[in-house]
Amino acid sequence: MAVGKSPRRKDAVAKVTGRARYTDDFSMPGMLYAKYVRSPIAHGRVLRIDTGKARNLHGVEAVFTFEDVSDRRFATAGHPYCLDGSHPDIADRRLLTGHVRYHGDEVAIVVARDRLTAQKAVGLVQVEYEAYPVAVDAQTALSPDAHPIHKGGNTIDSHQFEAGGDLEKAFEAADVIVENDYKTPITWHCHMENHSAYAYMDDMEHIVVVSSTQIPHICRRIVGEALDIPWGRVRVVKPYIGGGFGNKQDVILEPMVAFLTLKLGGVPVKLELPREECFIGTRTRHATRSRNRAGATRDGVLKGLEIECVSNTGAYASHGHAVMGAASSKSCNLYPRGVIKLKATTHYANIPAAGAMRAYGSPQIIFGIECIVEEAARAIGMDPLDFRLKNVARQGDVNPLNKKEILSCALVECLEKGRELIRWDEKKDANRNQTGHVRRGLGVACFSYGSGTYPACVEISGARLTLNQDGSVHLQVGATEIGQGSDTAFAQMAAETLGVAYENVHVVSTQDTDVTPFDTGAYASRQTYVVAPAVKEAAGKLRDDILKYAALMTGQTSEALDLINGNIVFANRPDRVVLPLGDLALDAYYHKDLGGQLTADASYKTRTNPLSFGCTFVDLEVDIPLCKVVIRQIFNVHDSGVIIHPVMAKGQVHGGLAMGIGMALFEELLVDDNSGRIYNNNLLDYKMPTFMDIPDLGCAFVENREPTGGYGNKSLGEPPNITPAPAIRNAVLDATGVKVDEIPMTPKTLYRYFSRAGLI
Amino acid sequence: MAVGKSPRRKDAVAKVTGRARYTDDFSMPGMLYAKYVRSPIAHGRVLRIDTGKARNLHGVEAVFTFEDVSDRRFATAGHPYCLDGSHPDIADRRLLTGHVRYHGDEVAIVVARDRLTAQKAVGLVQVEYEAYPVAVDAQTALSPDAHPIHKGGNTIDSHQFEAGGDLEKAFEAADVIVENDYKTPITWHCHMENHSAYAYMDDMEHIVVVSSTQIPHICRRIVGEALDIPWGRVRVVKPYIGGGFGNKQDVILEPMVAFLTLKLGGVPVKLELPREECFIGTRTRHATRSRNRAGATRDGVLKGLEIECVSNTGAYASHGHAVMGAASSKSCNLYPRGVIKLKATTHYANIPAAGAMRAYGSPQIIFGIECIVEEAARAIGMDPLDFRLKNVARQGDVNPLNKKEILSCALVECLEKGRELIRWDEKKDANRNQTGHVRRGLGVACFSYGSGTYPACVEISGARLTLNQDGSVHLQVGATEIGQGSDTAFAQMAAETLGVAYENVHVVSTQDTDVTPFDTGAYASRQTYVVAPAVKEAAGKLRDDILKYAALMTGQTSEALDLINGNIVFANRPDRVVLPLGDLALDAYYHKDLGGQLTADASYKTRTNPLSFGCTFVDLEVDIPLCKVVIRQIFNVHDSGVIIHPVMAKGQVHGGLAMGIGMALFEELLVDDNSGRIYNNNLLDYKMPTFMDIPDLGCAFVENREPTGGYGNKSLGEPPNITPAPAIRNAVLDATGVKVDEIPMTPKTLYRYFSRAGLI
Repeated sequence: MAVGKSPRRKDAVAKVTGRARYTDDFSMPGMLYAKYVRSPIAHGRVLRIDTGKARNLHGVEAVFTFEDVSDRRFATAGHPYCLDGSHPDIADRRLLTGHVRYHGDEVAIVVARDRLTAQKAVGLVQVEYEAYPVAVDAQTALSPDAHPIHKGGNTIDSHQFEAGGDLEKAFEAADVIVENDYKTPITWHCHMENHSAYAYMDDMEHIVVVSSTQIPHICRRIVGEALDIPWGRVRVVKPYIGGGFGNKQDVILEPMVAFLTLKLGGVPVKLELPREECFIGTRTRHATRSRNRAGATRDGVLKGLEIECVSNTGAYASHGHAVMGAASSKSCNLYPRGVIKLKATTHYANIPAAGAMRAYGSPQIIFGIECIVEEAARAIGMDPLDFRLKNVARQGDVNPLNKKEILSCALVECLEKGRELIRWDEKKDANRNQTGHVRRGLGVACFSYGSGTYPACVEISGARLTLNQDGSVHLQVGATEIGQGSDTAFAQMAAETLGVAYENVHVVSTQDTDVTPFDTGAYASRQTYVVAPAVKEAAGKLRDDILKYAALMTGQTSEALDLINGNIVFANRPDRVVLPLGDLALDAYYHKDLGGQLTADASYKTRTNPLSFGCTFVDLEVDIPLCKVVIRQIFNVHDSGVIIHPVMAKGQVHGGLAMGIGMALFEELLVDDNSGRIYNNNLLDYKMPTFMDIPDLGCAFVENREPTGGYGNKSLGEPPNITPAPAIRNAVLDATGVKVDEIPMTPKTLYRYFSRAGLI
Repeated sequence: MAVGKSPRRKDAVAKVTGRARYTDDFSMPGMLYAKYVRSPIAHGRVLRIDTGKARNLHGVEAVFTFEDVSDRRFATAGHPYCLDGSHPDIADRRLLTGHVRYHGDEVAIVVARDRLTAQKAVGLVQVEYEAYPVAVDAQTALSPDAHPIHKGGNTIDSHQFEAGGDLEKAFEAADVIVENDYKTPITWHCHMENHSAYAYMDDMEHIVVVSSTQIPHICRRIVGEALDIPWGRVRVVKPYIGGGFGNKQDVILEPMVAFLTLKLGGVPVKLELPREECFIGTRTRHATRSRNRAGATRDGVLKGLEIECVSNTGAYASHGHAVMGAASSKSCNLYPRGVIKLKATTHYANIPAAGAMRAYGSPQIIFGIECIVEEAARAIGMDPLDFRLKNVARQGDVNPLNKKEILSCALVECLEKGRELIRWDEKKDANRNQTGHVRRGLGVACFSYGSGTYPACVEISGARLTLNQDGSVHLQVGATEIGQGSDTAFAQMAAETLGVAYENVHVVSTQDTDVTPFDTGAYASRQTYVVAPAVKEAAGKLRDDILKYAALMTGQTSEALDLINGNIVFANRPDRVVLPLGDLALDAYYHKDLGGQLTADASYKTRTNPLSFGCTFVDLEVDIPLCKVVIRQIFNVHDSGVIIHPVMAKGQVHGGLAMGIGMALFEELLVDDNSGRIYNNNLLDYKMPTFMDIPDLGCAFVENREPTGGYGNKSLGEPPNITPAPAIRNAVLDATGVKVDEIPMTPKTLYRYFSRAGLI
């Protein structure tokens, strides 16, 4: 049995030895290098652009400006194509723009024989701008006299719902109602590998794009749409990628490199963003502001929650419209027995575009919910953990919004496990009545999350298995390995169902839309869940065909035979090897009259979307005069169903926890209010926590078989990132009594709050 | 209907614009370059080898000698693996050798950072040899005291059969018996692209080999065998290749580059042979000598044929054992109503190894047959064309050797057509009683050929079709485009069966054994015939699935619908479009509950091997004092069943004719009898005919539906090459009365014959 074990990752050796090849490791003879000309103002329009000097620079092959590209608008959000128009993406991008919308917007592009010449040429493009007023936040962008950033105004999405009853009635039944405002920052993904893509053509009909993308098949479609060419003529290849965290769930560079090679007769053209451009020219996490309310009875029943959230999507819509929608609807699963009323508004502003980032809006929405819930508990004088235990989702609850029953849920068990791990009760007692400079606090926060995007989007996955002559198999999936370990998990599943050793499942890691089964890619923590049935189906088919062929070879019935650990055995005597799978494979391939290559394909649509649950527990101390938080212990406890690969699962949790701690205490992309310029577009000034800043990370799972899943598993990729921030904020509140209502809780922020509270 | 039309080749634009990328067009960062150290003697053994100086050269990364490689022997012949041992290939190669067997044998290999350093280092490897006696031909190699070139002696294969009766009895019934000796030269393939391959590893388990090969899947197996690693760990990628003609149906460089990357920690290592090394270090066409007899009655019945052929396979077996076997058994189909007795012997010699070359021994065997048959006709005073018309195979004849009925045969019609085209009878009359210096002659020669290798080898092919979102399809086949146009032919077939436009069938031209359906590759003129049923099956399946989905979408039954030219139409009203295929595809991909990616796979084993037939007619003049032959008109007339793509078919015939003319009049790789050295290992001294030397080439087809074929087609790739030489030789005989019994008929050769005959 391969599932539930922790075999060596398929890509372990390739990656730790540096042999793994990423997009930027590929080169082609004659390759050209492109570089954007970016606007030095955040809002305005180009009055004049002169590319003459740049064109004349030796080594420059071409310069294209916004005047040279089609007026066609396209959407960059990496969503599956929507057949019914129910979830339209917003087509607000041109390849280059004359109306600049953020400090760094792309007005032209230079193509040269080498990177340095391209860079030099960028400086020679002379552009004259007319400046428009700059709006960096909701207050200015949504004011009635705001300059429209796009046609149709600055609001891109506003939606609301009231689920589980009538909120005002629920609040009438409440003994206390608490209300507060919260603020979350712009953060950035900090994937190790920057954005990079190149394109070329062999003929003049097919464009090949090689890209560091999470979503090759979606990328193919968007390139086709952006360039108005049939999608079948676009081929997207994804090598190993060095992380994405949602930032490569957007199609940013690919349409441009495809355009360039098309214009330049098929010559390979590469576009790589250096880190500074990557920070501003790709996507960020949406900054949000919310005003939340919660009502509870004295005996600890959460009657209702109200969330009003405003989300800033920056210069282009990207995922903006969908992020709030997804996070809003997911939030209804956490406290499903209360009323939830939610309003979310997303607006444009003259800052870099926000897009998908790990957990897709949930860290923002859940931060507000888990803060206000904490305050409700405290308002009725109840232990916040007990309050949550009383109110969180349980198996059999019904989501008040979509009316779906929650089939598996171990959140209560997760909370109980966390209580134990962190020694909540013991520490709670010890922490009472602290008065010194350094005070300790305990915090907890809960989340629920989906396992895909159904029914908002189609959930389709594909797997293909081929039996090799040596009895090993090759596995091809459309789902993408982006560092999270999906290749390994799928290989485990295939090994499990097929009956061969994990080591004998070879995964074709590169996705190539010309030959890879269709799958929409890595996002929404979907892959392990939605790909599982495709792998299971393909492996089941191949296994059946193998046993049929074994029957043909041996004269047995296929029912009398079984495939275990790479051997055909007697079903009723699994210890008796009838023949090794390799011998069968050789016969199937090379028998002159019988057999054939044994392969199996599955294209599977998932029509379920189970919920994962979990929580963060934190024990920290706050040095009040230093305004510094030191985490003593932190645990994430997850119900992600059956854990496919415990070591990798732990790795996901560690990564998510660290990212969540970053959001809680360190990270923020800083915008100048007047100019819209980003102050810290680099890894020196953008304070991502390093190894020194991160405590030991604790992790536990409550395994719980999800009945709808291929292997009982549910999502795990994004969830660990959701609750560290509210848990830490709640622990700071626990330690100091101060409601810090914004993150990151840097010393600067804490100083403001602690001063205001009279602590210093 | 796409079959039978001549749409633009799929690779036309890529190739004529220079965009097509061949193995040597790919490079990888850090790539190293390898170069062989070749022996300067043709036979002997290495006494001492000192690589110290070479290793110390700056830029040299490694030097390996025969002492550093395993003692494991492997076979290089590109045949499918043989399950039952009935057609074993001869495992007589090591990666490097201490026993050198030809002038140029590989004793060591140098790996350096660039080509020049590698070349320089080769010169620094000091090797001391002990020389053995050199045997370059049968006479010396097969003499009782010959030094054994390999263990087991110098004969590698000797086989004989007598089919259709008893030859001596048949000869007793004959009125005349003619006997003569013939000699065919060593020729070389002269593919435009030299041999080139490189290998690398991403992890330490999988070796990727990129190679200019005709047979990627076979190459994978042989690399696995040569290195003793499981085949599933080898991946072979074949980009566009610039011709092979059989020389890339041998696995020559690939095991070495795989070995080198394995030894060097996965670093990419490339091995390219310059033209001079390619001439000697790859494969040639076997030189043969034969003694043939034919017996006929006065009324023109060919009673029997006897062929005794000796074939020189050079230093290594390669295909040697199989070439004579294949050509021998094929030869029984040409005059199936007579007795045929054949003995063929193949031996080693100290010259470059011979292997597969276009028509695989048939040009040699058929040369002898068509010469002796010509002489039989002349001996009874019958027009050689009439004699052939009387004796050649007809539909319904039974092959005397394998007892199979010939289901389709239009050889008589081909001969009649050729007679007309060349105006045989008219010219025959005009040519009578010539006496001048310049005399004209007419010649004819016939062939039959197979359409694959069954039942000697397994015939397996694979095709996969995927419906794209835009209604186009992608076609993947394991069969290889090597310049012959197979991608185009398969696309036509898919378009035909599926009901979409040829332009909307996109072919994945690169084979990659990790993802490409299994097929053994391009050889034996098999592909168009044996791949057709796989394409047909996959296209039929996909079409069925499309119509089923159309039924689901429209509420019609699938029987009521049809797919024509990319539209779903009503079966009984094909002019009424129900929906375009693109709309159906979008729905199948993106409907949230129904559908999936529509793909179809087929792995097909062909168990038939129909015969193609045809003939060459030539009208030439011989300038006797100048010993020069000028072709006035030449026609090949083919029965290849249904012609899939008339323009490409004509191209095949033109190419084969030109190659046949080269063999008849110009080409020979010249060996020094004493040293075994090749005199003319380059395209200046090896006299391949150029455009100036080749007359207008005539071509005609007698289309004849082969009942066993997917689209009524039979082989065509190799056949055009078989009969130009005997037809030209017979025309020279016709013109001069001189039996020139060896080719190429260069002025030097003709001078010898014409002097001996007293003509000059």
